[in-house]
Amino acid sequence: MISVGIVGATGYTGAELVRFLVQHPHVRLTSLAGRRTAGQSTRASLPSLQALSAASDRVPESIESFDPDRMADTCEAVFTALPHGTSAGVVSALRRRGLPVFDLSADFRLRDPEVYRRWYGEHGAADLLPSAVYGLPELFGSAIRAADLVAVPGCYPTATLLACAPLVTCGALRGGDPIVVDAKSGVSGAGRDPKAATHFAAVSEGIRAYAGPGRHRHTPEIEEVLRGLGSDDVRVLFSPHLVPMIRGILSTSYAAVSDPQWSATRITEVARAAYDSSPFVQVLDPESFPDTAWIKGSNRALVSYSQDKASGWLVAQCAIDNLVKGAAGQAIQCLNVRMGFEESAGLQQVGVWP
Amino acid sequence: MISVGIVGATGYTGAELVRFLVQHPHVRLTSLAGRRTAGQSTRASLPSLQALSAASDRVPESIESFDPDRMADTCEAVFTALPHGTSAGVVSALRRRGLPVFDLSADFRLRDPEVYRRWYGEHGAADLLPSAVYGLPELFGSAIRAADLVAVPGCYPTATLLACAPLVTCGALRGGDPIVVDAKSGVSGAGRDPKAATHFAAVSEGIRAYAGPGRHRHTPEIEEVLRGLGSDDVRVLFSPHLVPMIRGILSTSYAAVSDPQWSATRITEVARAAYDSSPFVQVLDPESFPDTAWIKGSNRALVSYSQDKASGWLVAQCAIDNLVKGAAGQAIQCLNVRMGFEESAGLQQVGVWP
Amino acid sequence: MISVGIVGATGYTGAELVRFLVQHPHVRLTSLAGRRTAGQSTRASLPSLQALSAASDRVPESIESFDPDRMADTCEAVFTALPHGTSAGVVSALRRRGLPVFDLSADFRLRDPEVYRRWYGEHGAADLLPSAVYGLPELFGSAIRAADLVAVPGCYPTATLLACAPLVTCGALRGGDPIVVDAKSGVSGAGRDPKAATHFAAVSEGIRAYAGPGRHRHTPEIEEVLRGLGSDDVRVLFSPHLVPMIRGILSTSYAAVSDPQWSATRITEVARAAYDSSPFVQVLDPESFPDTAWIKGSNRALVSYSQDKASGWLVAQCAIDNLVKGAAGQAIQCLNVRMGFEESAGLQQVGVWP
Amino acid sequence: MISVGIVGATGYTGAELVRFLVQHPHVRLTSLAGRRTAGQSTRASLPSLQALSAASDRVPESIESFDPDRMADTCEAVFTALPHGTSAGVVSALRRRGLPVFDLSADFRLRDPEVYRRWYGEHGAADLLPSAVYGLPELFGSAIRAADLVAVPGCYPTATLLACAPLVTCGALRGGDPIVVDAKSGVSGAGRDPKAATHFAAVSEGIRAYAGPGRHRHTPEIEEVLRGLGSDDVRVLFSPHLVPMIRGILSTSYAAVSDPQWSATRITEVARAAYDSSPFVQVLDPESFPDTAWIKGSNRALVSYSQDKASGWLVAQCAIDNLVKGAAGQAIQCLNVRMGFEESAGLQQVGVWP
Repeated sequence: MISVGIVGATGYTGAELVRFLVQHPHVRLTSLAGRRTAGQSTRASLPSLQALSAASDRVPESIESFDPDRMADTCEAVFTALPHGTSAGVVSALRRRGLPVFDLSADFRLRDPEVYRRWYGEHGAADLLPSAVYGLPELFGSAIRAADLVAVPGCYPTATLLACAPLVTCGALRGGDPIVVDAKSGVSGAGRDPKAATHFAAVSEGIRAYAGPGRHRHTPEIEEVLRGLGSDDVRVLFSPHLVPMIRGILSTSYAAVSDPQWSATRITEVARAAYDSSPFVQVLDPESFPDTAWIKGSNRALVSYSQDKASGWLVAQCAIDNLVKGAAGQAIQCLNVRMGFEESAGLQQVGVWP
Repeated sequence: MISVGIVGATGYTGAELVRFLVQHPHVRLTSLAGRRTAGQSTRASLPSLQALSAASDRVPESIESFDPDRMADTCEAVFTALPHGTSAGVVSALRRRGLPVFDLSADFRLRDPEVYRRWYGEHGAADLLPSAVYGLPELFGSAIRAADLVAVPGCYPTATLLACAPLVTCGALRGGDPIVVDAKSGVSGAGRDPKAATHFAAVSEGIRAYAGPGRHRHTPEIEEVLRGLGSDDVRVLFSPHLVPMIRGILSTSYAAVSDPQWSATRITEVARAAYDSSPFVQVLDPESFPDTAWIKGSNRALVSYSQDKASGWLVAQCAIDNLVKGAAGQAIQCLNVRMGFEESAGLQQVGVWP
Repeated sequence: MISVGIVGATGYTGAELVRFLVQHPHVRLTSLAGRRTAGQSTRASLPSLQALSAASDRVPESIESFDPDRMADTCEAVFTALPHGTSAGVVSALRRRGLPVFDLSADFRLRDPEVYRRWYGEHGAADLLPSAVYGLPELFGSAIRAADLVAVPGCYPTATLLACAPLVTCGALRGGDPIVVDAKSGVSGAGRDPKAATHFAAVSEGIRAYAGPGRHRHTPEIEEVLRGLGSDDVRVLFSPHLVPMIRGILSTSYAAVSDPQWSATRITEVARAAYDSSPFVQVLDPESFPDTAWIKGSNRALVSYSQDKASGWLVAQCAIDNLVKGAAGQAIQCLNVRMGFEESAGLQQVGVWP
Repeated sequence: MISVGIVGATGYTGAELVRFLVQHPHVRLTSLAGRRTAGQSTRASLPSLQALSAASDRVPESIESFDPDRMADTCEAVFTALPHGTSAGVVSALRRRGLPVFDLSADFRLRDPEVYRRWYGEHGAADLLPSAVYGLPELFGSAIRAADLVAVPGCYPTATLLACAPLVTCGALRGGDPIVVDAKSGVSGAGRDPKAATHFAAVSEGIRAYAGPGRHRHTPEIEEVLRGLGSDDVRVLFSPHLVPMIRGILSTSYAAVSDPQWSATRITEVARAAYDSSPFVQVLDPESFPDTAWIKGSNRALVSYSQDKASGWLVAQCAIDNLVKGAAGQAIQCLNVRMGFEESAGLQQVGVWP
């Protein structure tokens, strides 16, 4: 049993961390910090907790303002669920006090501070970058086991990498042209703050792309990881779309094959072998199509491969819940790996369907 | 650890029973029966299970056709999630073999076979009616503890009774006029079979009533229970509406008070006392309004009371997830009570929000 | 052909006014004013206009800041679609310049400045109240014909009054107890400004009440009109709910009858006679239930009556599109009546279904 | 003023034809035929018409069964909105009686009966194929003017062709690799018959692909048209997705350029020139992204181009309402062109937003 804190506890990702951690068999939630909600009762800040008995001792009674010393006193590990830029300083403060940190912002996902600067601006804690480990346990499990700063990837990279990593690792891709990634996200990915683009009447009953190809910040992150897997010149054309649903990411990747032998069937076998020991990734039969509705609320990922007979191009899909396997669930999975708990501890729920 | 079976395992209620039971600490799912899906693999029949590892032994590999002898061999208790009319015979067969049954149909909810006949037609197992206990643990917990046939109430009666029972018990209602119940349901309440009325394009972006006042079958059920609580002549005007959402019931009841002393504040105190020991019912502060989105996917119920100052009329609301506290979760809660498990075993999840 | 301006042209109601007026056979849109959008191109401010050819001369090229003199120069009538409180001053300025005004705020809907003060605060132009006519053409057509200031009612009062007016006029109601009005609204009723309560992830897949009975500002407005129809002591218990859909209001009213002769069938006849000459109100058969999806995007209203046999209580329903018959469409209908155009000019579209 | 009939009047496409034609300035709807709804009143079959006054003479009172002789007696042109396979025989019967036919099925869209056989089975009226004209007025307007059998394309080809035609015509595509078309459709595209895949609870809050790349019947249709525009070897990898919304198609096409000079800016100019005289197609600025919500309910199409700087690949998008520009509206546009009416007669509505 370890004591755990959350900084940024009342955004959507924070809420989701709380939802899982109040039931985690090895975790005690001891500290919840929030900037705008500091001082409020936890139940008032997180609507789903209103249904918990007021006498429940599974969640701290109120939201506090962030104080690294107090956190160091009461916690053995901390999740930071803050906007990029803001996170770097908070993580620094926590690391200086020796706490292992699981950071859900973009601040420690890119290895190269130059690339960070180009996409996000000056880095606030570049000295920590060398120690950060990319928190995708299916690919970097052994590094996470030894890490004190885990940069948990977000929803788009997680979905895209789970589908594409086997293609890259086995050398099935032709190269030269980019992998075309057409990704579709639910609205909760935009965060809890109300904006014109998240207004129900703006979002419901419509679909649209919301960033140009090559203009979305997840592009360099996906490329960096795929290149690290062995394909130096892999390129990604990333195109995100907003779908009228609360949760879910479906990432559809299109790529030319290096050799006609790479059929959907063969790639399916390769991927099943790669994810054999993963408790959360299931590879569907070739020419099946995962629905984000099937894994809603769960930490599970559904991957599938299909193929265009005429051109030989492969289509790799992955469906996850953006707030779980694309955020809070994955962060807890990293905690489990890091702390030596069972990888699926507290995360075994199947999807809420329908 | 007991062995449990489900008849009607691949409808929405069956799916939800499976979702909770695969994680229940004291239950082993040994038998899943379905009529149309018999012979299919469980994973193909229940989409959310595709994300379970194929090697998982937490769910039977395939759906079988219903055979009471086989069920009696492999199960110690059975959930029946079948249409009314169909259920009576199946329950009979299981009871004859000595199995405790938790029935989610309407077949054993009404005590009076005459009333059943008027609303549903001839009863197929009227001899069992005297032994059936109404499966609302908050009101009938001690009877459930001793029952071998539990008639688990559906979503509308559960939500309406949890909100109105304290009003009736304490004598706050004026009588004479009906309690006006304006209820709003998500679409999953209509079941998994596709119908014109459940087509996405027919349901999304619209709201409507779908049964006349006094014409819905839940009316006599609600009246029977409320009368049993002490108010002989209580009447209910029940008006159900279909809301474009998958899950959730919000029941809004309007009633005149017997005495001006019955304020929302006082009723809130009465209700809090009544539900004090219940792990699933929370009574919000007066003039608060529960949202079904706050308890989505969970077995929890949110109750609240408000009042029209000018007329003194009370408004009693209750929000539940129709498939959980209004069906599968409540049935498992009854199993827990009946088997002497902790009442909330396997049901502690908070709502999936947002 | 008359020249028309809109103040508040880029909110949802303004957008809807533009949608209808660009096709109105007798109207030329000459001036669009907006506070926050002043200076922007009209196409950038109203997304649906992006699909108009840039060369289209049916809509002014840009949004201007409000200037009453310029409006008086270019317009012969003005629609004001502003928040209550703000509207009074703008309407004053326009009326001083002799322009007939169709005001969509709450500022001129209540006849009694005392009542206004209690619900909204001090009135900014109480001197104009005596000249304002309530803009519900089905009830006040002849007064509108002579009015220079029309206070166009909003969505809740319109839907509730169209359903309840015939009940009150013919004396079918018992009195004493309030009419219980359980109203359900789409999200666009909350306006275009993003708020926590309009975030897609907060609204989708949930339903809830959002104001206590007797606490919503539409209560006095509905009561004032119904009392004016002859029933001095009629009271309304108004309870608004938020439904996860963009458009639509369904108002369900419950009331005791004064005499058992008042059946749904008889009331249906009364209402059909009352709305016989109305181009927009259809009264469905008794025990039918209107769906807001059937009149989406149109100025039409569907009314129906049903009855609880056991208690004799009547249920009166009305479905409208809140932005059309509940706002912009009704304002244009008032303009048509006032200007002597055909009442349905520019408003004949049937609902966009599905 | 011409007299027009519809065969298949009570499916979604039929309903949409009725919605526009009851307001068309040059059309009188004289005959509505339906198989399953024959004998029913038109108002009962098409919910949105319940709001029309019963005395309205703008729509035939009841649905009839299809009788080609009666149709020839009462109509001067006919729309057929039937499933592929069924349509061929009906169209044959109408053409034999000399009626111009606007067919909304797939039966006459493919020029080559061999290709039809491979994707749909034996053709029921292959003799008519040479006389059929592809009903996309933006590309084939002059042929439509002289046609007596117009094969109106469906939603996916319309959206994809409007975006890609300018790319192909001007020679901007590299060839060799397929154009990757990732298309997203609303649920109404699946028709009015309820199916498991259109159940609200199956569709809401999820997204998924529903046909493998190269396995969807629209692939050969899109390829045939693009090849006819001059690029003999163009290939399309078509991947359709189902989005939880009633209406709308967003087609996103990805393609390598033949020459680095082909920027999004230049292609935008090319496309603007191409659609200059079209009343319904607007080409947005480069790096803009159309939302299907902006053209909901209207016959308008929004096209846009963006580009991945790193690879030079172009992204071509088009948003339409699948039931309007992707079906009924386009058919009426074809009628207008064929009959010499103004191309936009009866179709000038802008989108219903929000």
